[in-house]
Amino acid sequence: MEPRISIVTLGVADLERSFHFYRDGLKLPTTRSPENGIVFFQTNGITLALYPYQDLADDIGPGWNEPRSKFSGITLAHNVKERGEVDEILATAEAAGAHIVKPAADTFWGGYSGYFTDPDGYVWEVAWGAFEFNDDGSLHVT
Amino acid sequence: MEPRISIVTLGVADLERSFHFYRDGLKLPTTRSPENGIVFFQTNGITLALYPYQDLADDIGPGWNEPRSKFSGITLAHNVKERGEVDEILATAEAAGAHIVKPAADTFWGGYSGYFTDPDGYVWEVAWGAFEFNDDGSLHVT
Repeated sequence: MEPRISIVTLGVADLERSFHFYRDGLKLPTTRSPENGIVFFQTNGITLALYPYQDLADDIGPGWNEPRSKFSGITLAHNVKERGEVDEILATAEAAGAHIVKPAADTFWGGYSGYFTDPDGYVWEVAWGAFEFNDDGSLHVT
Repeated sequence: MEPRISIVTLGVADLERSFHFYRDGLKLPTTRSPENGIVFFQTNGITLALYPYQDLADDIGPGWNEPRSKFSGITLAHNVKERGEVDEILATAEAAGAHIVKPAADTFWGGYSGYFTDPDGYVWEVAWGAFEFNDDGSLHVT
C-alpha cells in the first residue's frame, strides 16, 4: 500500500448548499455541479468530495445510515504560511456561512489557530506555525 | 484561501493501538511515536494525524467531547491504479486488524471497491476505476 489518501468524502445533508459553501464561499476549484449527484474539488494533492449523507452511508452498506453525533471525531486542517492568513480565512469562512466555533488564538504548541464548522457541522482548523511547507504546498513532517 | 487540505486528524481511543495499525499494518511512513502525544504520517500531499479523541475534542472547545456515533459521516479513500490492488490492500488491512465492512465488488459507477474500518471504526474505501492519476499520485478530477 503506497502512502496515499486520495479522497476525503463528506456526507452532506444538502448537496446544493454545501456545493455553494465550498465553491463560492471557500473558492475551491471544481468542474462539477450538484446535478451530477456528487461533487469533486481538486485541492492540493487530495480530492475533496461532497456526497449526500444517505447515499454515502448506503454505499458502505446496511446499518450505516444512522444519525450522526455532533462531533465526527475527525478534523480537517488548512495550514497557512503567514500568521495573518488565519484571521483572513476564518473571516472568509464566516462570510460564506461557516460558524466560528473557536476564534483564532495562540495555541499550546506555539502556533495560532481557530476552528470553523461547515454547513453540516464538519470541523475545520485554520492553523499557522510549527510546520514547514514542501514545495507543493503540503506540510513537511519531521 | 488556497485550495489545500493540509491535515486529516482522526480522534482515536488508543493512540498506541492506532499507531501500530497505521505504521506497522498499513506501512504509512512516520518519524513520530505515541510518546509525543500525537502522531503524524507523511502521505502523498496530505498529513494524516492521530490524536487522542478527548484531546482533539477539547482542543475545539467545551461541549465537543461527546460519544461518537457509528458513522462519522466522513470516508477516506485510497485509490489504486490496478484493479487487483484493491483485493491486495483489503487483505493487508484485514491482516493488520481492520474489519472488512464491504468486501470488494463491482460498483455502480463502473469501478471496483471495498470498505474497511480502522481500530476506531473510521471508514476507508479502497477503490479502482473512474479516475486518472496525476504524476504525483493524486487523482485527476475532470
